[in-house]
Amino acid sequence: MTRVHIPIHRRWGDLDALGHVNNTSMLKLLEEARLRAFWKSEDPADQAPTAVFGNDVLGEGGTLATLIARQEIEYLAPVPYEHKPLDVQLWIGRLGGSSAEICYEVYSPSTGPEAQTLYARASAVVVMVDTATGRPTRLPEDVREVWAPYVEEPIAFSRR
Amino acid sequence: MTRVHIPIHRRWGDLDALGHVNNTSMLKLLEEARLRAFWKSEDPADQAPTAVFGNDVLGEGGTLATLIARQEIEYLAPVPYEHKPLDVQLWIGRLGGSSAEICYEVYSPSTGPEAQTLYARASAVVVMVDTATGRPTRLPEDVREVWAPYVEEPIAFSRR
Amino acid sequence: MTRVHIPIHRRWGDLDALGHVNNTSMLKLLEEARLRAFWKSEDPADQAPTAVFGNDVLGEGGTLATLIARQEIEYLAPVPYEHKPLDVQLWIGRLGGSSAEICYEVYSPSTGPEAQTLYARASAVVVMVDTATGRPTRLPEDVREVWAPYVEEPIAFSRR
Amino acid sequence: MTRVHIPIHRRWGDLDALGHVNNTSMLKLLEEARLRAFWKSEDPADQAPTAVFGNDVLGEGGTLATLIARQEIEYLAPVPYEHKPLDVQLWIGRLGGSSAEICYEVYSPSTGPEAQTLYARASAVVVMVDTATGRPTRLPEDVREVWAPYVEEPIAFSRR
Repeated sequence: MTRVHIPIHRRWGDLDALGHVNNTSMLKLLEEARLRAFWKSEDPADQAPTAVFGNDVLGEGGTLATLIARQEIEYLAPVPYEHKPLDVQLWIGRLGGSSAEICYEVYSPSTGPEAQTLYARASAVVVMVDTATGRPTRLPEDVREVWAPYVEEPIAFSRR
Repeated sequence: MTRVHIPIHRRWGDLDALGHVNNTSMLKLLEEARLRAFWKSEDPADQAPTAVFGNDVLGEGGTLATLIARQEIEYLAPVPYEHKPLDVQLWIGRLGGSSAEICYEVYSPSTGPEAQTLYARASAVVVMVDTATGRPTRLPEDVREVWAPYVEEPIAFSRR
Repeated sequence: MTRVHIPIHRRWGDLDALGHVNNTSMLKLLEEARLRAFWKSEDPADQAPTAVFGNDVLGEGGTLATLIARQEIEYLAPVPYEHKPLDVQLWIGRLGGSSAEICYEVYSPSTGPEAQTLYARASAVVVMVDTATGRPTRLPEDVREVWAPYVEEPIAFSRR
Repeated sequence: MTRVHIPIHRRWGDLDALGHVNNTSMLKLLEEARLRAFWKSEDPADQAPTAVFGNDVLGEGGTLATLIARQEIEYLAPVPYEHKPLDVQLWIGRLGGSSAEICYEVYSPSTGPEAQTLYARASAVVVMVDTATGRPTRLPEDVREVWAPYVEEPIAFSRR
């Protein structure tokens, strides 16, 4: 089972008036995990092994874009504010022609002796689009190659 | 078919670097629509017919709370910034013992001669919890009565 | 004394864990008031008399941009969540060569019999920049003409 | 010159439609730096030397709260998205009876061979309040002792 582990820092500002990380802030944290997992950093030492997107996607003069077509999230336990980063685990639940299903599990920090708490499970369908035509376009072969080892069973949501 | 129509103003700050309302901001807009639909306003003239929650829920000394257990959203078209409010339509897709499935469709503004664009469809499962025990508790009868006329078929998501 | 009054809706999500509109959310509300005051709407009936910026600024192929150079804000009372819109009042504190100081006072809703509460006073210095050179450029004459009637004394902040 | 250095991660979601970290998001980053600088962490190894606030402030049954009375910020250069954390430097510009002026300078990441870019300078006046009376109360002596070494000249804002 190969997953990418992305440490994501919460902010106190992610809390809402109920004192927990807001349910929409959780998706903000997943967005950042996704960016860090798939986007090439300016510093090669500072990126995930799954990073495949560069300036040709969304960058200056780019002709490709990735859009979110759907999202689903199940909240299992309230998330408190803490300094240590959450352990967001990502994998590919399905690698389609022009789209991919990104799966996430959000865990409490991996440091420390206690067992980690699973806070949430989520998925996002990302579609690759040609910005000239606005239509879906095939995921490039080099993207498929880098992502193939991370394909795993998609999440079976329990409350559907 | 009885739905609640809640006008929700976008903010320019809801846009992300791609120039459209960010996919997580969409859930922020749904959160606000849900609040306006279900929460009693300080001004009785300024609330939806479905408003049932008052200070006993989440308020000072309250013993009940509503939690989001899951969310699902399908994005159909990018949402631009515009001054006029979105037309967020809500109904109850399922009225359970201690939970309810809130369904939403997000449309472009209802004013003007053009047909409205359906931007997104979404659902959220809300669970009523007793804050003393932290466990699900039965939705009160008066809540059921107010909501019953708004029960309609839940959304059949297309990309699952 | 000529001010523009912009009604701005709060969101429950603007609250932080202390149960009041977060101090940074206040600036988000001011941002939206500024946009609504100065940006031409797609609907001429739906814009402030001070609206002067169109697609030549920040739009497709635009060559001008407005940047925020500084902001200052004084918080006078905690802002609760309420359905009714805040009454954000704007005026021009100083109309310079390539910049303007926007002044704001944030009041509780103007409807209702009670006297309005002044929640916050703020200012923002906006600079007009030529995107080709990245350097400040003179505010166009038509902008000056539209804004001249709204020039008033700038805010005298009390705690500096 | 003693300053606290707090590494703060940007999020792609901090960018606005202009493609830079939004001016209000900058204050969100400062908020997080302030929390990390002054709030005791659950993990003693993971907190700044200036951390003084615990559960007696804002916590369960707490009787003290800190409020932001004013903020001021000067933006010197647009902030891009990058994986590496910003280097937010904090110090105390003034230690008053019941309030303190927190000063910040926001720099590009401290790792790497290049000179750091100063992106913004800011200050926030924090007031300690007794939640029972709602009135300002004296900063405790132990807070003063911990903070005294970090008192330095306040920022001289240039565009006032």
